[in-house]
Amino acid sequence: MRLHGYYRSSTSYRLRIALELKGLDYEYVPVNLLTSEQKGAPFTARNPFGSVPLLEVDGKDYVQSMAQIEWLDEAFADRPLLPSDLHDRYIARELAYAIATELHAPLNLPVLKYLKDQYGKSQDEIGVWYRHWLARTLAPLEARLAQLGTGDFLFDAPGFFEVCLLPQVYNARRFEFDFSDMPHITRIESACLPLPEFQRAHPDNQSDNPENT
Amino acid sequence: MRLHGYYRSSTSYRLRIALELKGLDYEYVPVNLLTSEQKGAPFTARNPFGSVPLLEVDGKDYVQSMAQIEWLDEAFADRPLLPSDLHDRYIARELAYAIATELHAPLNLPVLKYLKDQYGKSQDEIGVWYRHWLARTLAPLEARLAQLGTGDFLFDAPGFFEVCLLPQVYNARRFEFDFSDMPHITRIESACLPLPEFQRAHPDNQSDNPENT
Repeated sequence: MRLHGYYRSSTSYRLRIALELKGLDYEYVPVNLLTSEQKGAPFTARNPFGSVPLLEVDGKDYVQSMAQIEWLDEAFADRPLLPSDLHDRYIARELAYAIATELHAPLNLPVLKYLKDQYGKSQDEIGVWYRHWLARTLAPLEARLAQLGTGDFLFDAPGFFEVCLLPQVYNARRFEFDFSDMPHITRIESACLPLPEFQRAHPDNQSDNPENT
Repeated sequence: MRLHGYYRSSTSYRLRIALELKGLDYEYVPVNLLTSEQKGAPFTARNPFGSVPLLEVDGKDYVQSMAQIEWLDEAFADRPLLPSDLHDRYIARELAYAIATELHAPLNLPVLKYLKDQYGKSQDEIGVWYRHWLARTLAPLEARLAQLGTGDFLFDAPGFFEVCLLPQVYNARRFEFDFSDMPHITRIESACLPLPEFQRAHPDNQSDNPENT
């Protein structure tokens, strides 16, 4: 199993956490987004979307992060990311897909680059944009966690939701988002971060992080 | 089963198609997005995200469209939306989630309103934005369909992918997107649109469409 990704890409980070939580061995192959390697012909021949992560398993390429995670959980039954109860599965997906559908695209590099290049927005204005959309989804997400009476994790152990939450929180902190009124989200963050699976998956600990080269 | 939605919301439209394809009876309850009914206290008490669609089943509220569709397919095994083969399931999800994660948020009303109110963008400039992001995801999606040799539907019958595709194409046509070099997408659109399930789900045929009142 090979994961082609970028240390700071939140979708690559999702996959690293998912693979680690499921105990699956994989080789990490860095793709340099700064030189647009993902838009080059060798890469787009395998993934027309020109995006990471690309997961390579038994000669097949898997190219969309949420579909990859759903597939991993179906193809490798051990250590499931989704709970077994149908309603719990719905809840895990509700919160994970709120992040994946509402936050991924508006906060991803192509949109931020469009704001800079086409609209001439400054880094400060882009920060305002970034935190605006974060607040709009993370505030109701925090309210849902409060309704559910969530503890250290959404359920008994980290899974499908935490796979999506931790990369989003990591990116939010890079943009100095204020988490002071979000005790549920930050408690889950604090409970996950020290775990060896999350440590191994963390952007700080990837071979393509410039601090490690 | 009650579906609280808005005729022109693409996520509400997804749910209507999913319910129709699965042959599930439901009552349609219009939520007026033009008067921000979804942001009022009675609605946000049930859905802190303040968004449609809200699906009400046996006294429980389900509030995120992709999680709703995954749940429906697990809770009601008849007429599955996802195929049974694991790799086919991955493919259906890859294409559906490409739409849900890359296109929903940047093309949704809140972002378009932000461009207008905060950045002072004109309707024409918003059209440029809209078609830019559509092309960026629909062009590789068309390439994937060509690689897969797709016919009238992604698989034998419309399912998980078509549930997401048709509402996106409907919205794209409202913004005069040029589909002339996308024969696979438009063939699927042409095959789905006349089917009674898609007709009943169509925005034109909803009670809250002003043309019907």
